[in-house]
Amino acid sequence: MRDVSIIGIGQTNVGEHWDTSLRHLALEAITTAALEANVDHIDGLFVGNMLAGELSGQGNLGALIADFVGLRGVEAVTVEAASASGGAAVRQAVLAVAGGMMDFALVVGVEKLSDVVGSASITAQATATDSDYEAAHGVTPLAIAAMMMRRYMHEYDAALADFAAFSINAHLNAGTNPYAMFHNKLSVASFIKAPMVADPINLFDAAAPADGAAAIVIAPTDWARQRGDGSIRMAASAVATDALAIADRHDPLWLTAAEASAHKAYRQAGMTAKDVHFAELHDAASVLAALSLEACGFAERGQGVNFAKGGGIARDGKTPISTLGGLKGRGDPGGATGVYQLVEAAQQLRGQAGPNQIANARVGLTQSLGANGATAITHILVRD
Amino acid sequence: MRDVSIIGIGQTNVGEHWDTSLRHLALEAITTAALEANVDHIDGLFVGNMLAGELSGQGNLGALIADFVGLRGVEAVTVEAASASGGAAVRQAVLAVAGGMMDFALVVGVEKLSDVVGSASITAQATATDSDYEAAHGVTPLAIAAMMMRRYMHEYDAALADFAAFSINAHLNAGTNPYAMFHNKLSVASFIKAPMVADPINLFDAAAPADGAAAIVIAPTDWARQRGDGSIRMAASAVATDALAIADRHDPLWLTAAEASAHKAYRQAGMTAKDVHFAELHDAASVLAALSLEACGFAERGQGVNFAKGGGIARDGKTPISTLGGLKGRGDPGGATGVYQLVEAAQQLRGQAGPNQIANARVGLTQSLGANGATAITHILVRD
Repeated sequence: MRDVSIIGIGQTNVGEHWDTSLRHLALEAITTAALEANVDHIDGLFVGNMLAGELSGQGNLGALIADFVGLRGVEAVTVEAASASGGAAVRQAVLAVAGGMMDFALVVGVEKLSDVVGSASITAQATATDSDYEAAHGVTPLAIAAMMMRRYMHEYDAALADFAAFSINAHLNAGTNPYAMFHNKLSVASFIKAPMVADPINLFDAAAPADGAAAIVIAPTDWARQRGDGSIRMAASAVATDALAIADRHDPLWLTAAEASAHKAYRQAGMTAKDVHFAELHDAASVLAALSLEACGFAERGQGVNFAKGGGIARDGKTPISTLGGLKGRGDPGGATGVYQLVEAAQQLRGQAGPNQIANARVGLTQSLGANGATAITHILVRD
Repeated sequence: MRDVSIIGIGQTNVGEHWDTSLRHLALEAITTAALEANVDHIDGLFVGNMLAGELSGQGNLGALIADFVGLRGVEAVTVEAASASGGAAVRQAVLAVAGGMMDFALVVGVEKLSDVVGSASITAQATATDSDYEAAHGVTPLAIAAMMMRRYMHEYDAALADFAAFSINAHLNAGTNPYAMFHNKLSVASFIKAPMVADPINLFDAAAPADGAAAIVIAPTDWARQRGDGSIRMAASAVATDALAIADRHDPLWLTAAEASAHKAYRQAGMTAKDVHFAELHDAASVLAALSLEACGFAERGQGVNFAKGGGIARDGKTPISTLGGLKGRGDPGGATGVYQLVEAAQQLRGQAGPNQIANARVGLTQSLGANGATAITHILVRD
């Protein structure tokens, strides 16, 4: 096993790309990442995608995108783990390069969620739940998150307004990220008046399904260092899983997989939560951000919301999150989201986050959740 | 990089499992494989699946199956490459174990294609084509294979009856495989009278979409040898890709990706086509079997059909194929098919193929094709 580094990043704007196909979005992100990486070949392409088959009628994105971006012939595959698909694709690339099976791996997360609306879109997104025991009864991933939030409010005596801190922080940070979907600011007053989507999750709490692509190129750290280009080392890469169905989990208010993958990652990196300077968490809904803060050890159990409300997640807080907008402010392009997290963490560590720059950021954690925590994929990035 | 071996195999009957869910099929195959493997833990689960999201409303099979088979918490992911999804899942496991990132990896290919019939099923299968340039015009994967067959007949002066040898061989071998879908024998006379599905591909030429699951457990060869359990070494694992759209390929009658992946595999194994004792090829249609024989170097260009007609693919031929029925006789459960190929090759090499046993089989090749050759995944197994 050898150290691996990120030597190139790229991303498209996140939004409703009705006039741009999956392959064109992927091309845009890959072109930027590949130009930065500047390597003479790519050994493997790993595509993170969740719903192209259901919503765009397109499978086998590995071969399709490899061909379209000028890599015809290269080893290529698509990786899926619901909304953690992007993180899962990164993980496969890390396995290949860290194990010495490949030198240069390209990862692209790409998704188009806005072309199809209404029940067909909801049905597609519900494939992330347990089809036989959850979706069959009409529940969707967001409805499950809503039940988790209701339980959180009950157990920890939290009010709707208490959750506003997450979305306010996300939108504030997205406002100065040119790639983000939303540039409007939120307030507690506007948050609590927003129309309900899945009570108690409202429009300003739920991340918007969107279109976009993000890409990274991974190489051995020794090789990257010899070139001396300020690459970002991946100090940890860890996956854990839990039951899909929320009713099957030991505790609906504890993200067991998120905790397990974070702690595996800490062990790999030889760190604790205290060593992390900022985190890109899976804030598809505020309650998930709160539970992720707790599972990763950034906040005590039941204190995730208070931690946010007290400013702990702000740019100058103890553990800044969603530093470029997160899922809520940047937008949530499904299987691309997990790769956006890595791209944004690399931006921070390179000092390329512009007005969003976290001062002295040297260690960043990213965590991608699939199906409200059934899959959790944690990476820790370090600027040495 | 270290050698890896298959230390456990399992499979369900292939057929129409209307009363058995995806997770139950997976459990059945995994239970057998895991009992054989008899290891104290599993480091990662790799699920090969193509259409569960579209046809069963189920995504994130990695976490779902991990939980259901008693591996809750384990690293798990789903891998897709159209009809090569099973082979692609095996490849990810090989990357992880050969690179030393995991010791024991479990692979399961699982698919249910028979629950949905009619246009919805065809639409789902058409996700394996280029959606924007092929499926949008109404073409399906089998229709593309039909155009390849028509071109083959024209270029190489082959008649419909000449292709019968593939299906006759497949059904003969399936007849004595208890896991196979079809146990009826075919003749040239019955073959040429079969109703057309996509002219010139008829009902007895096209592999039947089916349900099933197959599983293997992979471990380091050194570890397996110490235990002395007659494990099967994976001497090669190689992936190559080509354009999805047939019109974009350099030559519609040459499977460039199949050739590239086979030759990569030969180089890894230090072998040539002559060293292979039998092959499990992707005979979703006879023309694909013919083109695969040519791409892998078992027959000269344009001679694949004649090679079969002359007995070259029979159990006692130069290169036996579909030795336990292949896709045509065993049935084609989509993303499970690529794993069935490995399971069957292991059966042959272990001497557990019963009446289908190939005499002195010591080297077997498997090749999984996605989207009529847009993805090709080749493994070479060896009994040392």
